[in-house]
Amino acid sequence: MTNRPDEFSLIEQIRRRTVVSDRTRLGIGDDAALLNVSGDGEVLVAIDVLMEGVHFDGERSGAEAVGRKALAVNLSDMAAMAARPTATVVGIVLPKRRAELLGQQLMDGLLGIAAEFDVDLIGGDTNTWDGPLVISVTLLGEPSGRGIVTRSGARAGDWLFVTGALGGSLSGRHLTFQPRVDEALTLHSAVNLHAMIDVSDGVASDVRHLARESDVGMVIDAGAVPIHDDVDGSLSDAQRLHHALTDGEDFELLFSVSKEDGRRLLERSPLDVPLTLIGAVTQEAGCRLRLADGTQTELPEGGWVHSFGDAS
Amino acid sequence: MTNRPDEFSLIEQIRRRTVVSDRTRLGIGDDAALLNVSGDGEVLVAIDVLMEGVHFDGERSGAEAVGRKALAVNLSDMAAMAARPTATVVGIVLPKRRAELLGQQLMDGLLGIAAEFDVDLIGGDTNTWDGPLVISVTLLGEPSGRGIVTRSGARAGDWLFVTGALGGSLSGRHLTFQPRVDEALTLHSAVNLHAMIDVSDGVASDVRHLARESDVGMVIDAGAVPIHDDVDGSLSDAQRLHHALTDGEDFELLFSVSKEDGRRLLERSPLDVPLTLIGAVTQEAGCRLRLADGTQTELPEGGWVHSFGDAS
Repeated sequence: MTNRPDEFSLIEQIRRRTVVSDRTRLGIGDDAALLNVSGDGEVLVAIDVLMEGVHFDGERSGAEAVGRKALAVNLSDMAAMAARPTATVVGIVLPKRRAELLGQQLMDGLLGIAAEFDVDLIGGDTNTWDGPLVISVTLLGEPSGRGIVTRSGARAGDWLFVTGALGGSLSGRHLTFQPRVDEALTLHSAVNLHAMIDVSDGVASDVRHLARESDVGMVIDAGAVPIHDDVDGSLSDAQRLHHALTDGEDFELLFSVSKEDGRRLLERSPLDVPLTLIGAVTQEAGCRLRLADGTQTELPEGGWVHSFGDAS
Repeated sequence: MTNRPDEFSLIEQIRRRTVVSDRTRLGIGDDAALLNVSGDGEVLVAIDVLMEGVHFDGERSGAEAVGRKALAVNLSDMAAMAARPTATVVGIVLPKRRAELLGQQLMDGLLGIAAEFDVDLIGGDTNTWDGPLVISVTLLGEPSGRGIVTRSGARAGDWLFVTGALGGSLSGRHLTFQPRVDEALTLHSAVNLHAMIDVSDGVASDVRHLARESDVGMVIDAGAVPIHDDVDGSLSDAQRLHHALTDGEDFELLFSVSKEDGRRLLERSPLDVPLTLIGAVTQEAGCRLRLADGTQTELPEGGWVHSFGDAS
């Protein structure tokens, strides 16, 4: 489940009025839902919809890249739960005049990354119309032996880490990023992950999601935030930091662990991708940015914006 | 999974190139997929996408009716497997200028029928854009104690039954129909259902799906087809029959059972809705219509069409 800024209130409204049965172990409000199923099973479910003109530019982005991204964003949600993706169903809406070619290209991209992550395509619904391309992907997954990691387990005193580097994704990386599924499972077996989310709205927003769900506060060290090379190097340091905090679509892992586990990760990271200590969890509510001189300001608002292509 | 006539070749292409693992017990090609999950569980998955201007008229149909229908068509898929629906995730794309009101109305309709069928809403993704309304619903379910019923179990000599009456749905019933979930479960415990599908494309098309998946032929008795009162009474008998066979969106159950079970159903139907013997399964391939004089013709082509509102 993604929380785009302008749809946030609708999600909250839905969440408030939704009553679920005992079989729903985790409902609306995290990166995926967890359901008890017949027999003795558990299944995780995530859904994401991508629309031409909003999440990708139909002219510039090939449909293959779009098909890949549509599954990749869900794989990133599954990673955020430290779960294994297993199977997917796909709803496709194709512009009539290019339906056949676009459909094949979409499936090329989707089936390619599905094979890479050992995910079965088990069903779908294809449609055509006179409108733009829309693809809706639902991904199922299963918990690893250590259970899932939610957004709500961060504790005061925890350290906050992020994988990879942040910002500038919309210049192209948002279509080609590698979902951190393996990294999440590796971390999950190496340390006790208290809370985790994937950075989709921008770390400034996603830190807020973690803080709210965990009922804690967070402080981010301005100097520690790893800024991606995709962020324009000619900008000022402050502007570059702002991009790293708010551009979104990074699809890196943001998580909290105890100080002890944090020290362990710093001494010897189990990951091949960079792992950076960017802040800490506080008892005091609110999300703040700690500047080099020690002063603290509010974390910038913003986060993922609907008009892509303006990330330069 | 629905098979609209003009997207059929894309689905077939996808199906041919899709390789699945052992955990996928039933993949693309039936009304829902069946997946083994961690522990000892099984989960069924169905997906359907509804688009404004294609599956409903945004001006005439209230968003509440659309939200209801979006889940109802998936409930009908689950009924076709004789399975119990359990939980749903919903992807919503709303026109920006009416997003809040439409979103609330959609959820009113969806949550209403979800409660009626004991289905949990467990996640979603909401988006806005300048385009028309799109809603993608994924429904999970679980097999009853007697397992699932697929499209592929029809045997030569079986009798073909349909619930309810057919035709004229697009004049309004396509938004208000009652998914045959309870009826399917009742039938499943009363007799040995060999093959089943829900009538979404029109019984002439859906009979073909059953025949192809079961590798058999089918004969429909023209005089036996139950024609719905929604079909214009001023039309000729042949025209009315044509509507009943090809209009689609009836969401009734079409199934085959042994002659013995068929006799049992005719003697004492376990259902509150009408149950009609409309034909038989043949060894000889092909799907035919048997006329009153005993001659046989090809079943009419056609089935569900994308431009609704022309069902008069």
